[in-house]
Order: sequence, then C-alpha cells, then structure tokens
Amino acid sequence: MASPARHFASDNAAGIHPEVLAAIAAANEGHALAYGADPWTAAATSLFRTEFGDSSHAFLVYGGTGANVVALGALLHPWESVVCAATAHINVDECGAPERFLGSKLMPLPTPDGKLRPDVVRAAVTAVSIDHAAHHVQPRVISISQSTEYGTVYRLVELRALSALAKELGLLLHMDGARLANAAAALDVPLRAMTADVGVDVLSFGGTKNGAMGAEAVVFFDPARDVAVRFGRKQAMQLPSKMRFVAAQFEALLQDGLWRRNALRANRMARRLAEGAAAVPGVTITKQVDANAVFARLPRERIAALQARRFFYVWDEAASEVRWMCSFDTTEQDVDDFVSELRDTLA
Amino acid sequence: MASPARHFASDNAAGIHPEVLAAIAAANEGHALAYGADPWTAAATSLFRTEFGDSSHAFLVYGGTGANVVALGALLHPWESVVCAATAHINVDECGAPERFLGSKLMPLPTPDGKLRPDVVRAAVTAVSIDHAAHHVQPRVISISQSTEYGTVYRLVELRALSALAKELGLLLHMDGARLANAAAALDVPLRAMTADVGVDVLSFGGTKNGAMGAEAVVFFDPARDVAVRFGRKQAMQLPSKMRFVAAQFEALLQDGLWRRNALRANRMARRLAEGAAAVPGVTITKQVDANAVFARLPRERIAALQARRFFYVWDEAASEVRWMCSFDTTEQDVDDFVSELRDTLA
Amino acid sequence: MASPARHFASDNAAGIHPEVLAAIAAANEGHALAYGADPWTAAATSLFRTEFGDSSHAFLVYGGTGANVVALGALLHPWESVVCAATAHINVDECGAPERFLGSKLMPLPTPDGKLRPDVVRAAVTAVSIDHAAHHVQPRVISISQSTEYGTVYRLVELRALSALAKELGLLLHMDGARLANAAAALDVPLRAMTADVGVDVLSFGGTKNGAMGAEAVVFFDPARDVAVRFGRKQAMQLPSKMRFVAAQFEALLQDGLWRRNALRANRMARRLAEGAAAVPGVTITKQVDANAVFARLPRERIAALQARRFFYVWDEAASEVRWMCSFDTTEQDVDDFVSELRDTLA
Amino acid sequence: MASPARHFASDNAAGIHPEVLAAIAAANEGHALAYGADPWTAAATSLFRTEFGDSSHAFLVYGGTGANVVALGALLHPWESVVCAATAHINVDECGAPERFLGSKLMPLPTPDGKLRPDVVRAAVTAVSIDHAAHHVQPRVISISQSTEYGTVYRLVELRALSALAKELGLLLHMDGARLANAAAALDVPLRAMTADVGVDVLSFGGTKNGAMGAEAVVFFDPARDVAVRFGRKQAMQLPSKMRFVAAQFEALLQDGLWRRNALRANRMARRLAEGAAAVPGVTITKQVDANAVFARLPRERIAALQARRFFYVWDEAASEVRWMCSFDTTEQDVDDFVSELRDTLA
Repeated sequence: MASPARHFASDNAAGIHPEVLAAIAAANEGHALAYGADPWTAAATSLFRTEFGDSSHAFLVYGGTGANVVALGALLHPWESVVCAATAHINVDECGAPERFLGSKLMPLPTPDGKLRPDVVRAAVTAVSIDHAAHHVQPRVISISQSTEYGTVYRLVELRALSALAKELGLLLHMDGARLANAAAALDVPLRAMTADVGVDVLSFGGTKNGAMGAEAVVFFDPARDVAVRFGRKQAMQLPSKMRFVAAQFEALLQDGLWRRNALRANRMARRLAEGAAAVPGVTITKQVDANAVFARLPRERIAALQARRFFYVWDEAASEVRWMCSFDTTEQDVDDFVSELRDTLA
Repeated sequence: MASPARHFASDNAAGIHPEVLAAIAAANEGHALAYGADPWTAAATSLFRTEFGDSSHAFLVYGGTGANVVALGALLHPWESVVCAATAHINVDECGAPERFLGSKLMPLPTPDGKLRPDVVRAAVTAVSIDHAAHHVQPRVISISQSTEYGTVYRLVELRALSALAKELGLLLHMDGARLANAAAALDVPLRAMTADVGVDVLSFGGTKNGAMGAEAVVFFDPARDVAVRFGRKQAMQLPSKMRFVAAQFEALLQDGLWRRNALRANRMARRLAEGAAAVPGVTITKQVDANAVFARLPRERIAALQARRFFYVWDEAASEVRWMCSFDTTEQDVDDFVSELRDTLA
Repeated sequence: MASPARHFASDNAAGIHPEVLAAIAAANEGHALAYGADPWTAAATSLFRTEFGDSSHAFLVYGGTGANVVALGALLHPWESVVCAATAHINVDECGAPERFLGSKLMPLPTPDGKLRPDVVRAAVTAVSIDHAAHHVQPRVISISQSTEYGTVYRLVELRALSALAKELGLLLHMDGARLANAAAALDVPLRAMTADVGVDVLSFGGTKNGAMGAEAVVFFDPARDVAVRFGRKQAMQLPSKMRFVAAQFEALLQDGLWRRNALRANRMARRLAEGAAAVPGVTITKQVDANAVFARLPRERIAALQARRFFYVWDEAASEVRWMCSFDTTEQDVDDFVSELRDTLA
Repeated sequence: MASPARHFASDNAAGIHPEVLAAIAAANEGHALAYGADPWTAAATSLFRTEFGDSSHAFLVYGGTGANVVALGALLHPWESVVCAATAHINVDECGAPERFLGSKLMPLPTPDGKLRPDVVRAAVTAVSIDHAAHHVQPRVISISQSTEYGTVYRLVELRALSALAKELGLLLHMDGARLANAAAALDVPLRAMTADVGVDVLSFGGTKNGAMGAEAVVFFDPARDVAVRFGRKQAMQLPSKMRFVAAQFEALLQDGLWRRNALRANRMARRLAEGAAAVPGVTITKQVDANAVFARLPRERIAALQARRFFYVWDEAASEVRWMCSFDTTEQDVDDFVSELRDTLA
C-alpha cells in the first residue's frame, strides 16, 4: 500500500508515535487479566496520579466521545443541563451521544472563539428559574474544551474565573481535554495546573490526538465519583477488555514527558504555518493560534484546488473559513511545502 | 516488568497475535483520514465481504458490548424486546448497557447449556399477547451467542430451525459472535455458513478474543440497516477515530485464515484440557466442549489453591463449577502443566 | 348511549364514586394556579400526611405506570436493578416503561402467588457479584405490589421481613400500592402500618381503582428524595396542569375513610364471589382471596360463553385460569347473578 | 373553601367548562373496559375524524408534554433532531422530557415572536452536513406551536410555506396545538385547515386550556404511525385507564363547536384587554395579539403591586415584560376591572 502523504486535515489523521507503538509491543507478553486488573493499568494509573495529583483517579476508555459522556454522566442527573460553547465537541460532533445516553439537555452558548466567558454563563444560568414546579432543566455543569475546537486556549486566570463562577452558582466544571496536552504546552504549565488546581471536577483526557493509537481517560478528583464513573464506563460501552494495551500507550506518553514534546511540536508547527500563511496574499488568519490549529479565510474559489494537493477541512462554508491542524509528526518541510502550495494556488 | 504467566482465566487475557501486531505497525505510516475514510478500512471491509458474502456490510467498532448494542439497536424499536438465553452476555455481563442505551427489555430464557431451543422460544413469544392496548413489550429479536457463553456451539441444523422460527413469528435474528471463529472452527464451516446462509440479520463479530488487540465489527446483510448502524455506532460511542488500526487487525485475521488457525488451536487445547481434566479424580466436565471453553465441577475446598497456582474463574459458586478458557496462544505444555497442577491439588 | 352493565373485567372498569365526582365539581370554581400551587392540592397533601405520617410527602400524578416509574426513578441509578415478582405490573403490564425511561434492568423472580419471599430475594441478590469491573447491574431496589397482581396480600410480618432483608443487603423498598386500599382493608390496618411503619422507601399509591376518575400519587418518607421525585414527575410527563381536580379526588377518598369503605366493599364482594363460585362444579379457586381479585380455573371450552354474558379476562391461557375483579360498586346482586350465570354455563 | 378569583396567570388556571363537567358526569354509568375499549372513546375518536378528516387518527393522552413527546417519538430516530423556536414549549417548559424520553436533540432557533420562518429553518438545516461518518445529528422534524407561546398565530400561507420547505428538505412537520382552538378561532378556519390540509404529520391537540379538566390528544394522518403512537403512548405513561372520562371531555368540546366558542371568547377578551391596557400610560403591548395572550412591558417597580391584586407571570425579567392570558371563562368585567387596577397601580 502506497504511503499516504501527511496533510493538515486533523491531528487524528496522524499515526502512532513510535514510542507508543513500542510500548504496545512491549506489553504483548504472557497473559494479563482483562478490564484493568493488570500491571500496565496499575502503572498508567500511577503516572496519571503523578501528573494530576494524589486526589486524582483515572479510568481508561476507548474514545473521546465516550470519555465526555462518562465524565458528564458522573456529574448529572437527567434533569440537569450542561452549559457549553455552541462550538463544543459535545454539542456539534458527537451525534447527540450525550443526549442519547444521558437524557440530559445541553445549553449551547455563542462565543467568538470557542471560549466561554463568565458573564455569558452567568446570564444564561440565572435566566433559568430554579423552579419548584420543575418545568425547566436545571443548569448543573459548565463544560469547556481546553484547548478549544477553535485552537484557542483558556489562560489560568480565565479558568479560575469560570471555576469561581461555578462554585458561586452551585455548578460543577467539566473539561474536555481531548487536546489538553496542546494547551499545557501552550501555557507552559503542568497538566494539573489547568485541572485539579483550578477546580475542574471531571476531565476527559485525550491521548489519541497526542500520538496514541487510541487511548483516552476520564480523570476525576473526588473519590465519591468513583462508582458513577466505574459503572458509567461499562454501560457506555467504554471498558476495554485488553486494557493493558490502552494503559501501555498512556505509559509511553506520560512517562518521560513525551506528551509535552509531541504537543510542543504540533503547536510550533501551527505557529509556523500561521506565520507563513499570513504572508500569502488572500489569506487571513481568523482565530488566535494558541495551540495546534490554524483557522484561515481563503478565496472561496481556490479552496478545492488547494485541498486536491493536500487535504484539509472547510470549517465554515459561509465564511469561506478553513481549518488546518498540525500534529506530533508534522515537519517543518510539510509546513513550508504547504505554504508554497498555498502561494501557488492563490497566485 | 516480569512476564505474567499464561493461565485459563479468559481468552481476552491473551495478548496480540504477532501477525496482528505486525499489521498495526505496517499501517503506521503517513496520514490517513479518521473514522474509516482510509485504505485499510476499505481493505478490511472488502475482506469481510469475501467472508460473509456480497450482501454483507461490516462496520468496525471498539468493543463487544458496543457491537451487541449497535447491532440490536439496528433491529429494535424501544417497545420491542429481545429473547435470549438467561446466560447471554447481553443479559449478564454488559451491566445493562442494552437496556440503558436502547431502552428495550430483554426476555431471558433458561437453557441447560446456553443454547436456545425453538420450542422454548416459541412458548415464550406466543405467551405475550400482541395486544392493541400496548401493555406488553413486543418480542422482536432472537439473540443467540455462537459459540455460547458455555462453550457450546449451535449446529447448522439448529441455526436453521431458529431462523425458520424467527421468520414464522415475524422476528429477527441477532448473533453475538464474539467467538464466532471458534464456532466456525468447531463446525469446520465458513463464517457465512453460520450467518448469511442461515438468515442471521445482524452479527456482532469478534476479533479481540481471536488474537486482536481490540477489534470488533457489526455485520449486517440488508442495506436498509445502514443508517441505523452508522448513526447508532457513533451515538453508542463506538466509532474509532484512527480506524485504520482497527482495520489492520481485521486484515491480519481475515487475510490468510489466521482467524481459523487461531480458533482451531484454542479449540484443540480445550479438548486436550477437558480430556486431561476428566481423568483426574474429583473433576467432572459439566458442559459439552465444542469450542474453547471447559466447564468443570471441582471439590469446592480445593478451588482457591488451584487458582493460586494459575488463575481461572468460578462460574457458579453454588454448583462449585469453574470455567477454563483456552486461547490462540495456549500451548500443549500449558495444558499438561495445568492438568498436573489439578492432579496435585486434588490429590 | 345505553348503560353498560357491571362486570368483573377489572376494578378500573368501574366509574367514579359519586363523592369523588362531587368533589371534582366542588373544586370547579374560580381560578387556581396550575401544577399544584392551589389550595386543593395543599389540602390533599395534608390528608396524605395524616394517613402516612409526618415524615411523608405525597406528589400527585396522572397514572399508575407513571407513579411506579417516578417512584423507582427516585431510588435508582441507571446501573442499578429492581428485584420484583415475575408477575409484577412493572415487569409485565407497563410495556417496558421502566426500562425505557430509567434505563434500568428489572430482575423478575418466580413466585407461586405474586408475593416475594426473603429467601428467594436473598439468593438472587447475592448471586450477583458486587464487582469492581462493573460487568453486572447492581441490585438496589426490592419492589413489591400490595395487594399483588394475584390478589394476595403481604402480612405485616412478611413486610417487616422483606424490609429487614433490604436493610441487611443495602437495598431500598418500593411498594406498588395501586391497590393499597384493598390491602389495608384486608389486614384491617392503617395505610401507614404497611408503609412508613415497615420501612417502605417510596410508595405508588392508587386512587383510580379505589373509586377515583384518575388519581395516583408518589409518596416518599425521606425529604432527600424530594428533588428526584419533583423533577422526575415532570420529566416522566406526570405533572397534571389543573392539579386541583386530581387533588379533589384524593380529598374525597381520604377525608372520611371513603377509601376504606370502597375497599372493604370490593374485598367483601370478592370473597362472596369466591365462595359462590367454589360451590359450582368445575370451578377451582386457584389463589388465596385476600383482597378484591378472584382467580379460578374453569373448563376451557366454557370460558367464551361465560365471557359473552359478562366480560372478564383469561389470565393464563395454558392453565385455563381466569381473573374476576370486584370494585367499589360491585353489588351482591352482581355477584349472585354472575354465580348463576357460571352455574348455568358450566352445567 | 373560599372561591379563588379569576386572574390572568394562565389559561390552565381556569376550571372545567360546565358542559365538559356534565359530560364527565354523564359518562359515569356502569362499567366500561379501560384503556379506550369503550363507547365514549369510540365516539370521541369519531368526532376527531370529523374535525381532522378521514385520514386522521386520534389517540387520547393525559397531558400536553406527554402529547408532544409521543408525537415527536412517532417521527424520530434518536439520532434525528427537532428544529423549533427557542421559545417552544418543548424546548423551555418540559424540563427536558423530549431529550430524556426520546434521546433526541432539539435545535432551537431564535425568533422575534415565537414563529419559525422558512429562511431561518433552511439556513439552520442546511448548515448541518448530512455526513456519512455520522458526527452530526440529522434534522428530521420541524416543530411549530399554533398558536405560539407568544400568542401569535401562523397564517395559512405561512404554514404552507413551512410545509413546502419540510417536503423539500425531507423533513416532517409537528404541530404543538396546545392552543390550536385559539388559532382556529383567530383565523376563522376549521381545525383541519391548519393541520391535515397544510401537511402537518403529527399534531398535539389540547383540550385542557380550552375548557377540559385534563384532555389532550395525539392526532396523526398516516396510518403507518399507528404502532409508534400506540406503544409510545403506553411507554410514555400517557395511556389513561378510565379513558372514557377523557373521551367524554373531548366529546363535549368537539360536539357542537364548544371548542370554538370557548376559544373565541378567550381571544376576544385578550383583544379587549390589549386595547384597554394599551391606553394606560406606561404600558406597551409587545407582541401581536392574535389569540388569547397579551404580552406587555410595564414599569418594573409596579409589577409586584399589580400582581398582588390579581396574579400573572413576568415573562422576561430583563425586559420587564409580563404575560396576561385569557381563558374561556374570562369576563368583560374581569378585563375591565383589571384595566382599572392597571391604571390605578401605574398612576
């Protein structure tokens, strides 16, 4: 099979980081009890604790949608709702899995850049009467993506403000960290600084877009959530049988900071791409490039020709806005070649 | 990390077959679009079609519980029920995921050996009035496991009888084929002989227990089910992002009959174990050994000591019945050593 | 429209007791806020507290299936199951509404007479491992019907034994009291003696079969359940808008012991019917007649002719067993006429 | 109990129209089979057919939220979504019952007056890719309220345009007709002109706000929806046992045009109120008064004093907008007194 080229369609178009693959191979010896009763899962769990603090508990799952649904399920009754950005993955890209599985309603709010602001959340939540006749779903969780679907990153001060608001309003805080590594690399902080330290209640943590083959986790910080996550994971069909191979992937990513190196590389390539593209006449960078995504407006009639050379997605048809994602294996050559193609195509 | 020994706890305690791991590594080149728009998924899908016939359609998923739920969801309205053996995985071991996700009721029926018989199904189904006031859930699907949770295998004539009954009663037929390879090896028939050829409507097909790292599929035979499987898979959180690596596993298993070689080996080891164990005083083999499972009754007070040497599960505490599973990597030495340990422990 | 005759099909074939209808008419004056913020609901709630004790809270709902689902929903997480008699209304006659709305599994157990016994419950519950890998739904609620679907009534000592078992096993106790009035009349005890006093956690209390037009309630005894019942009632589509007219029905039933008079009459008619029928050659009374139901075995070939004269339901086709229900308006003449018809038809 | 005054809180604050109560009383004779197998239900069903056409089928239910959920459930798979006005009852006032019971997502759209316009619907629907990877819920139903929650009424030409759009986009049309009578009275057309004749697929039809004690119906026009409505009604806990008394209410409303007289009166009172209030300095009527609702902006600091004299609801706290509802029993005296109170309070 001919080798497919590297492109900018998504960070899940990349393959497996060689160290992750090696870890899978190394875990392939002898028999191990399924469903997590194995030494690799114990080791990965311990590494999670090192990253996220002693009060953290990590449960491994198959996928990102599954992680979000299990995480939210540990926080919600079915009559409680989730406040999120209208662009949130849980709202747009999960085919309604949260509503289907949890029965709960989402309350999507418009944002300019994928980031929820406290004043917008406060207005939306306080507009819903906490009524005794029970006509209205009751806001219970603020869910934010870090980094966001627009490649922007919440600053620590922004996270603290949202967390304080949550406490004030009696809400809980969920973080969709499918790209948490990119955010940590962008802010140059440890993973716990954006999660446990700012009062996140439950986190969906992503390995797949960071270089794993397929490895996600639900991390929570209050042992009282253990039962809901444990049984929710199984009911949500997210309990891997040969779990040692999911665990081994996390071991590889978490052990020597591979997650950070991978994220730094992807972020750096995104900045390089944004700078190169911004210099091409006809291209406007539309969102702040905090992490590994570049959003740009292009002349509509040239998009197809550019995609034909190297694939990427149109994000907003009406606005002629496209998305370019960088990943752990994007090279400077890839970026520079693509900028040349861009210059060619738009000339 | 010290190498864990091989034991008889489950066929998902085994690791990855070397050819499967090699296929994963071989698929790890360049970028590929996520969610199945990649050449490996196309190739695996084509191999499925070769095995299951031109009218078949295979959708890859993460896990076995997920496969069953997606499969049943493509057949059921929420007011329709599933007739199954009381011992069925969907009834006992999926933590109620079918009820949770589908809202449907299961109708578990007692069996001596995990196999549903037409007369028992007929009696149960016809006892439910097809009423117009809608008080009763309406039986709609017969779900059978091939091979069963007791390691027994439906003969083709038995499958045909159940399929004929389903047609007569206006029901559909689901097969939980988490161990379909073992059944095919046992019967010495192609996969399609037990599925498409006998009128199965939707199949859950398992790769994981056959030597994959984690690879399951939903296979259906009527293109009208495409939409329900497609969207059900996503909503059930069973759509792998880097799907090429699930596809590569199936390619390895399906390409040159690796699935059959693996299953034959596991089945042969189970027969060897059953024969060896049967000769040990105090051991009674309790179920017919058709595939890769051996069920035996042991003196209750010796079980813990035996487990301490090599782990396995007690299946029925009250009956002092245990389960020993063989897998693709079980060796004659493993079996013979275990029989010796058994003889020692029971002496 | 010609007046339909009285028959023995069901106690919900009866109409509205005149005092209940008068109460509805009396409540029909002026405007009242909807959804329970009205004086009639306050008065009915207070009467419930008088009957069930100061720690009780009653929420009015539309129907019996709705009451059961709301009640169970206040006790269960979706991974928790309900142990009940195989004949329970929640298992047989609610078209899977509990599974559909709650996502939970029922664990039906066989009984000779509709009454769960502690030893059967204990065996079923302890057979399910409280496992950490979360493969199995976790038993959480014992649900019993008082009186049962077979017209039998739990004695106080039996209720205390089930309640003690529930506490021992960490379970909660739900009572389907669609015919609680008949049970209280049969045992000659106050309503609270069978509920609050024996440790019932949540009760479905039925007015409809006792002479109301349509009035049911969920009664709980722990204020911590208030939120789950309040929002569960609305989400389960069980919040009546003009609630004053549901409340007025309960006022009529609860105020001067009308509920007990109605139940005593129905029970007495059932005993009269059972005695009369037992004396007819060919008739065997099959269940103990504790409350207002009579179950009998009849010659199969005479059933249709008898139904043509006065309608009733065949309960168990295979056993040629029929059910005759008496209601608050059944007269001695009705019973005696029916016994004559029975004698005629079977002669 | 002292007679509560008439106010403008809601049309469900009114009681039962005397003719409806008389019909309930008239139906209270003898025994009738439960769940709809009775002559009153047959008669009501026939009257529905007269109103809505020979291809219509009416199923009686308890409440309005239940009617909407059963109606939508007959149109949707769980991966399909409902486009509705952000102000729709299903979106705001049903405590998430549609999401909870159906698992489906709503797609609320902003409107100035509660009425969906084709261009807004088209833009929202076409923005969702009909994707093969199944990431996005698929729009399937347009749900509109007639009259709307803002008391506005779709003209026939507007309904036809939405229906044509639905057909063009492959969508179905649901109408929440909790106040359909008021709309029909406003437009001076038969009920079928706004429903069957313009291509509505399933209708929720309300009797309660029109003078019933509690009577709603699901009306559909394609016999293929029979099974889904029939079983959905039972699973949604919306199958009344003593259904004759729900049917009798509809008989009273539908027989001699009582529904229209009641609606005309309520609408006329709303116009009188709007005209009277508009003449009071400080009052601005904010929405077009098509049916029986009046929305007005008042000086914020006078609202409580006015509510203390005669209760009503503040609709939009931020906008200082209140809602006054008229009902079948509102008198000219009530309106004139209230306008006087308004004038007094605002003076």
